[in-house]
Amino acid sequence: MASTSNQTVTSNQTVYRATTTAPVNIAVIKYWGKRDTILNLPTNSSLSVTLSQRSLRTLTTASCSAEYPPADTLNLNGSPQDIQSSKRTLACISSLRALRKALEDGDSSLPKLSAHPLRIVSENNFPTAAGLASSAAGFAALVRAVADLYELPQSPQELSRIARQGSGSACRSLMGGYVAWRTGELADGSDSLAEEVAPATHWPEMRALVLVVSAEKKDVPSTEGMQTTVATSALFAERVLNVVPKRMDAIETAIQTRNFHEFAEITMRDSNTFHATCLDSWPPIFYMNDVSRAAVRLVHDINRVVGRTVCAYTFDAGPNAVIYYEDKDSEVVAGTVKAILGPNTEGWDGVFYERLANVTAGVSLDQIDSRAVEVLKDGVSRVILTGVGEGPVKVEDHLVSETGEILSTL
Amino acid sequence: MASTSNQTVTSNQTVYRATTTAPVNIAVIKYWGKRDTILNLPTNSSLSVTLSQRSLRTLTTASCSAEYPPADTLNLNGSPQDIQSSKRTLACISSLRALRKALEDGDSSLPKLSAHPLRIVSENNFPTAAGLASSAAGFAALVRAVADLYELPQSPQELSRIARQGSGSACRSLMGGYVAWRTGELADGSDSLAEEVAPATHWPEMRALVLVVSAEKKDVPSTEGMQTTVATSALFAERVLNVVPKRMDAIETAIQTRNFHEFAEITMRDSNTFHATCLDSWPPIFYMNDVSRAAVRLVHDINRVVGRTVCAYTFDAGPNAVIYYEDKDSEVVAGTVKAILGPNTEGWDGVFYERLANVTAGVSLDQIDSRAVEVLKDGVSRVILTGVGEGPVKVEDHLVSETGEILSTL
Repeated sequence: MASTSNQTVTSNQTVYRATTTAPVNIAVIKYWGKRDTILNLPTNSSLSVTLSQRSLRTLTTASCSAEYPPADTLNLNGSPQDIQSSKRTLACISSLRALRKALEDGDSSLPKLSAHPLRIVSENNFPTAAGLASSAAGFAALVRAVADLYELPQSPQELSRIARQGSGSACRSLMGGYVAWRTGELADGSDSLAEEVAPATHWPEMRALVLVVSAEKKDVPSTEGMQTTVATSALFAERVLNVVPKRMDAIETAIQTRNFHEFAEITMRDSNTFHATCLDSWPPIFYMNDVSRAAVRLVHDINRVVGRTVCAYTFDAGPNAVIYYEDKDSEVVAGTVKAILGPNTEGWDGVFYERLANVTAGVSLDQIDSRAVEVLKDGVSRVILTGVGEGPVKVEDHLVSETGEILSTL
Repeated sequence: MASTSNQTVTSNQTVYRATTTAPVNIAVIKYWGKRDTILNLPTNSSLSVTLSQRSLRTLTTASCSAEYPPADTLNLNGSPQDIQSSKRTLACISSLRALRKALEDGDSSLPKLSAHPLRIVSENNFPTAAGLASSAAGFAALVRAVADLYELPQSPQELSRIARQGSGSACRSLMGGYVAWRTGELADGSDSLAEEVAPATHWPEMRALVLVVSAEKKDVPSTEGMQTTVATSALFAERVLNVVPKRMDAIETAIQTRNFHEFAEITMRDSNTFHATCLDSWPPIFYMNDVSRAAVRLVHDINRVVGRTVCAYTFDAGPNAVIYYEDKDSEVVAGTVKAILGPNTEGWDGVFYERLANVTAGVSLDQIDSRAVEVLKDGVSRVILTGVGEGPVKVEDHLVSETGEILSTL
């Protein structure tokens, strides 16, 4: 048996391990609608900003060993998962294992890892209750970790085809910076891939402030919601066929030229169009609530008062607002939010906090809609301060010991 | 001078008077967007239910006299209006006066009423704060009253062309029952007219329960809002060109066949599509709030629990819900709402109350989303119980005395 870099040899068993972190991403052109529900092929292209793993990340160790009991296992945030009931997880593992098998078939010196049971252990450093799409980071980390374990030569773009089958938006979390997911045209989905539009270093000043809205039962899970929209919204086809393609082109140009005004307006308009098609679904789907609407008002008011577009909102399938802005405008954007919510709101002490620690300025609150101020003060339970960041990173903080035991950082 | 039926001769002056009531209407296919802002020509056809004047009505007296001071005047709910600054009011009066002038020119025996100053007095029997579109009833009553004063031979359909210039939806308040406003094709708007699809007697069981949502500043006035939508929404053209024409055909069939299920579903979907185009506008326009959304949830829950479509919501440019249902379903619909809001909510003692006075049944509240129940209980300030009704009615309760003094019923 050839030794590999992932190999750990202990007294009586060999455990192979690879560990990675993977980021959350927040779309600015939204993914909403599948043209193939098995393969997770989207009805339209989408584009996202990968968020810094200094704030939010999934940490995943993939390990395998001939000594493990025969079934693959997955442990998530300390709880064993029923991997056999998750077709999406099985699809990812099976694709990765097939790639490993092909390597082994071509080089008999390689250890037969594809024949070993997998033990995968994953942890998020943020509460699920934060309402952030943890499945994107989760599947990206799983695919990246297993690919590293198997020492697969495939590029992140090629791996995105596999991650996509776990969770559509996961394909965009395999890369950092500004990432497009091209809808593709082929029925087998082989051209429906993520692609880096620009690295984080191209426009590193991008910041994101998440306003976490006090929990309320989510309207409809997003997989179910998007199928309802595809099947019933009279306006949906127009968005897919005509609206999104133009916006994809325009926002890629905005990113290439670091034109925040354009980036912001397209981001806000696409969020609105996405939620419009949800409202136009039957039965209608509402993800935004009065607190979300107050955040919309706040962003428009800040931009109006400052006299230029300094911030942009976007909303996923839930009420939380994500506000994008550039670092230089931290005072007028995050400073204003901080003045409204008060410094004691949970989250102002995160890793991006230094920039804001002494911010007292911001926009004068009497220039902001007073009703919006009240609603935000009551309705935002915490903030998460972050910014554009890198893609998955290989680390040595394994969640599986050298002898195969599950570890935890929680 | 020939005597006319409207003539009152007193000691030293002759006052001509005509008085009418006019109804409110609530659209089920929404009017949203003008293709001509001067002529009030719509981008799409619309359809409404005329509501009973036993609940809601405008009462308007049009009078004229050679003895009046030279300028036309308008008194609304006890306050003199600056008629010269209201181009829309001037346009209506001028069109009506021209029609009278043509009559006089053709028959020299007619009194020259077109040369007399007008004194118009109008009162609503419902508070403006109710958030109901009072301008539709107001302009319909004004046009009807002046047409009666002038003894114009024009049909309600022909008069709708004039009322439309006052307020688009006013054209639909000149008729009772189920009324379509055809968008028309001509640039001069001469074919953009209201038309009775079916009289109230065709489907008299239709009821409407208005949930008046506690006042909050309205997002954007509807005239401004619709212009924003026309100019900026990427989805708007699709609604106008493809969605509404199909729905107009389908809902007219539903009305002809008294198919409540179809009527209800089209009504709800069109309300949703309309608000979707508002949300898709730039900047986005929100008329529905969390209380509106709770009403949507309630209606879907009632229909689900009953096992058939017994009620339908629709929302105009504001948060108030209008819930349509058939009289036979009063218990499960209005009874459920009454059980949620409590019998002390303002409005349950209106003229349509008898049917509900002893209703205790309704749907069991534990089958309704508990969050929606709480939000409605807190957020609905009053109800208005009404139903389909007749068009304008000529009455003798004049708001101008025989000697020209302004009277009041307030």
